[in-house]
Amino acid sequence: MSPAVASVRNAVRAAVDGLAPGDLVLAACSGGPDSLALAAALGFVAPRAGLRAGAVTVDHGLQPGSADRAAEVTAALRGLGLDPVRAVTVTVDGPGGPEAAARAARYTALEKAAADLGANAVLLGHTLDDQAETVLLGLARGSGPRSLAGMPARRGIFLRPLLGVRRTVTDAACAALGLSPWTDPHNSDRRFARVRVRLDALPALEDALGPGVAEALARTAGQLRDDAEVLEEIADAERVRGDSPLSAASLAALPAAVRTRVLRSAALAAGCPAGALTAAHVASIEELVTAWHGQRGVDLPGGVRAQRRSGLILFG
Amino acid sequence: MSPAVASVRNAVRAAVDGLAPGDLVLAACSGGPDSLALAAALGFVAPRAGLRAGAVTVDHGLQPGSADRAAEVTAALRGLGLDPVRAVTVTVDGPGGPEAAARAARYTALEKAAADLGANAVLLGHTLDDQAETVLLGLARGSGPRSLAGMPARRGIFLRPLLGVRRTVTDAACAALGLSPWTDPHNSDRRFARVRVRLDALPALEDALGPGVAEALARTAGQLRDDAEVLEEIADAERVRGDSPLSAASLAALPAAVRTRVLRSAALAAGCPAGALTAAHVASIEELVTAWHGQRGVDLPGGVRAQRRSGLILFG
Repeated sequence: MSPAVASVRNAVRAAVDGLAPGDLVLAACSGGPDSLALAAALGFVAPRAGLRAGAVTVDHGLQPGSADRAAEVTAALRGLGLDPVRAVTVTVDGPGGPEAAARAARYTALEKAAADLGANAVLLGHTLDDQAETVLLGLARGSGPRSLAGMPARRGIFLRPLLGVRRTVTDAACAALGLSPWTDPHNSDRRFARVRVRLDALPALEDALGPGVAEALARTAGQLRDDAEVLEEIADAERVRGDSPLSAASLAALPAAVRTRVLRSAALAAGCPAGALTAAHVASIEELVTAWHGQRGVDLPGGVRAQRRSGLILFG
Repeated sequence: MSPAVASVRNAVRAAVDGLAPGDLVLAACSGGPDSLALAAALGFVAPRAGLRAGAVTVDHGLQPGSADRAAEVTAALRGLGLDPVRAVTVTVDGPGGPEAAARAARYTALEKAAADLGANAVLLGHTLDDQAETVLLGLARGSGPRSLAGMPARRGIFLRPLLGVRRTVTDAACAALGLSPWTDPHNSDRRFARVRVRLDALPALEDALGPGVAEALARTAGQLRDDAEVLEEIADAERVRGDSPLSAASLAALPAAVRTRVLRSAALAAGCPAGALTAAHVASIEELVTAWHGQRGVDLPGGVRAQRRSGLILFG
């Protein structure tokens, strides 16, 4: 057997290890090489692990012929022994730019399909290369260590078995299995920041720093995620244990890493949307504690305002 | 007054704020634009803050004419009103490649000059751009979040006032003050990884992600440093409070972010050189706890060996 096929199967096997016999696992599949290799591996691994394997493909309706392609993908998925296989259509009209809107619509549709089919997990085909790109894209968002932590291997019903697998490996696995993945024209369209990172920025980093940059980014993302979890737990405990409302004096006594997370957590609890609250916002709130000179307050996303009154930090 | 000159002076003023009247502060100056702008700002700020200002230039003896240049730099520094001014010569023959050896020799020489002159602080000219480059270079080292935390604003006697100032600003400050900085030919020599990062990788990242990447990298470095300090304190407390030698069961119960730091700290205490101990080494030690299947042990830098025996993790 091809080492690439074995790598993808091993990764899927490890990801579904905790599921119970008879559980239904879905592969989310665009027809591209990553998710096609994922679906093929699930079709192989699931029956041998006592699991049922199905698949969902999402038609975003953004490109001509997308319905025909969805039909081809579902036929290919059935050919891999997956059952049930669903094609679901979504309307991309949400907020935050076309990429964010398509992503939000896709996850909602996948969750709904999983609920309809009674599935216990949905596998996503993101690879190590996707993770490295996500870390670099996170830099541009400027929301601090959190934005460098990349995508989690597990969140809710979603699992990402391939975060440690290179895209070259999923390509090779498709070739070894005689599968013909679809090439999304968006993947070479430099209007998208992710495409510029993939085609230009990561190769320039590898030229400058030597090979292994993508692996280093992906590995670092995992470690930053571990770090963030511990620090967020400490901050949550601090917010519960501490004064309510928060006192500036108590906040001043905390290490900066905990203080910023307590303030971020309080701002979210007051109604700030998580995606819109940047590290710069949190730094401005922190100045009410650490650089107080009678500021009038800090306007935050979602119409929330942070103020200092009588030594207390108030969100309203 | 030029805004660039004001920015550099403000940064220096903030950095020397905690020193006592009469203290001697030295600027380390290569003659390049960053450290020349720094020295000029120190010459302006120090007397107004009740401090004495001097400077040191280090002659690495690596390039022809370096002694002449050191003489020119000391003359320029005296012209900025700095006194005492010293030129010190170092021999670069330490371990770890020419860049690391030159750096080690330079810091040792600066510490010695500071001690000889009775100085209370030594200012270094690293800018926001240097910090961003350091973060990207840290990625290639692969030692995890620690390697992304960049250079500290303060360590021992050394202060880095310009970590928030762009290199364009120090260039502009020199121009506004009529200073003629020296251009180090090494700064355009692509044999050095740092030069490739500066000239190729960072511009490619800015093209892909938009402007502000260097600022985001530098800001993130500061936050990661805050995070690392809290987590290392927790790990140190855990290692002191916990079993000695470390028990695998206690380690298994810790969050990954704390466990890896406890193991790293134990490996350092057993004699591993900090610079040589990578995240991959620590991950191998961690597998003695989290993926135990009778491994024979892990060979670490400095001749240290980690082993698991009778449920204990031993370093010898």
